[in-house]
Amino acid sequence: MPHRPEHDATRQAWRASILTLFPEMFPGPLGLSLAGQALDAGLWSLATHQIREHGLGRHRAVDDTPAGGGAGMVMRADVVGAAVDSARSQDGADLPLIYFSPRGTPLTQSLAHELAEGPGVMLLAGRFEGLDQRVIEARGMREISIGDYILSGGELAAMVLLDACIRLLPGVVGSADSLTHESFETGLLEHALYTKPREWEGRSIPEVLLSGDHKKIAAWQETDSLRITSERRPDLLEARKRR
Amino acid sequence: MPHRPEHDATRQAWRASILTLFPEMFPGPLGLSLAGQALDAGLWSLATHQIREHGLGRHRAVDDTPAGGGAGMVMRADVVGAAVDSARSQDGADLPLIYFSPRGTPLTQSLAHELAEGPGVMLLAGRFEGLDQRVIEARGMREISIGDYILSGGELAAMVLLDACIRLLPGVVGSADSLTHESFETGLLEHALYTKPREWEGRSIPEVLLSGDHKKIAAWQETDSLRITSERRPDLLEARKRR
Repeated sequence: MPHRPEHDATRQAWRASILTLFPEMFPGPLGLSLAGQALDAGLWSLATHQIREHGLGRHRAVDDTPAGGGAGMVMRADVVGAAVDSARSQDGADLPLIYFSPRGTPLTQSLAHELAEGPGVMLLAGRFEGLDQRVIEARGMREISIGDYILSGGELAAMVLLDACIRLLPGVVGSADSLTHESFETGLLEHALYTKPREWEGRSIPEVLLSGDHKKIAAWQETDSLRITSERRPDLLEARKRR
Repeated sequence: MPHRPEHDATRQAWRASILTLFPEMFPGPLGLSLAGQALDAGLWSLATHQIREHGLGRHRAVDDTPAGGGAGMVMRADVVGAAVDSARSQDGADLPLIYFSPRGTPLTQSLAHELAEGPGVMLLAGRFEGLDQRVIEARGMREISIGDYILSGGELAAMVLLDACIRLLPGVVGSADSLTHESFETGLLEHALYTKPREWEGRSIPEVLLSGDHKKIAAWQETDSLRITSERRPDLLEARKRR
């Protein structure tokens, strides 16, 4: 049998497997621009799974009222467990299974790197009040939060995590250099940026940036990074000291 | 002239005005589910503005190389300034202007409440390495970050902010009660949730939640909230003490 490099190339693509009640949201924004070009180029692959196919009864119910009372509905362990098992049998059990929840570990740039270096991700986008705790434990889900705010569902969180990972995949962003100078990669926020025109509405580009003196420019940029980080995110400076 | 209640109702809708190089990404995921129903019901309105319409020359350039050198491209102050002025003349100058950047103030649930209570938002979704600092200052942009990671552009950040705000608008989520018990609203992460079946894969719902004793249930939920918050987000407990 002849060697089929195209097939091998496909097998190596970073895999995104999504469990959702709204598969029609995908790829959505990820079908355009950087992520969309990478999808078209086969650098990552996308599979969606409709959780409701594992729903119960005539109405394919996926949720029920919370034990102990309270508002909202909770996604059932049996339904989500079956959906996860089915997705794993199709897309592979090697993908880390992530459930998006404000209770999760915060997504960071280093976590995005870690996930981008693996085979891909299986993402569970919840809806309603939350998910039965037993299936989180039984299926070994990693709970991740994209920030300290509440969304109407996990789909946008899934897209955010995917976008953060996809741009780190080899071949997606042209210059690897433009990745290493960004905010967080150094533990600091990025310095202010300027481009042409030299003067705009009476505002000038700082002289030093036009001097051509690379040492002075680097010193200005570092000072500005430190200033903005200490003004806006003193927590990052603290974290950096502890490294 | 007769009174036109429909017209007044439209005027009161919470307004989202987006500046982007990818207007075709919107409403995207926000056109479905909760946010989509609210959009159809006129509870919020969406206008997109193509930044490239204000680009320069035959190729409608919007970016140029960074002053002082370095990788990547920077969005020009003159182009973005013109795009903002045009959007303000169409959608109103009363909307707070937000630029998404990892250098920004973190988006929180209380910021989402603050923005949801206002007339709406004007959101600038950047691309490339960043935006000329002068237009950030000259147009009074508020820099907001949705988390400590890098995205390929601000469009997903805009959708996240919109989704977080839209679900807080009056009439969007059925029960106001289901909003107040969530993570962050109390300063703690939410306790674990359970629903039927009572037993699944040998795992049971904690007895107390089935007891019908509301006092005991509330005590269990508070203990579980405190436990999960101290395990995963001790920073939230610290912030709560300082309130």
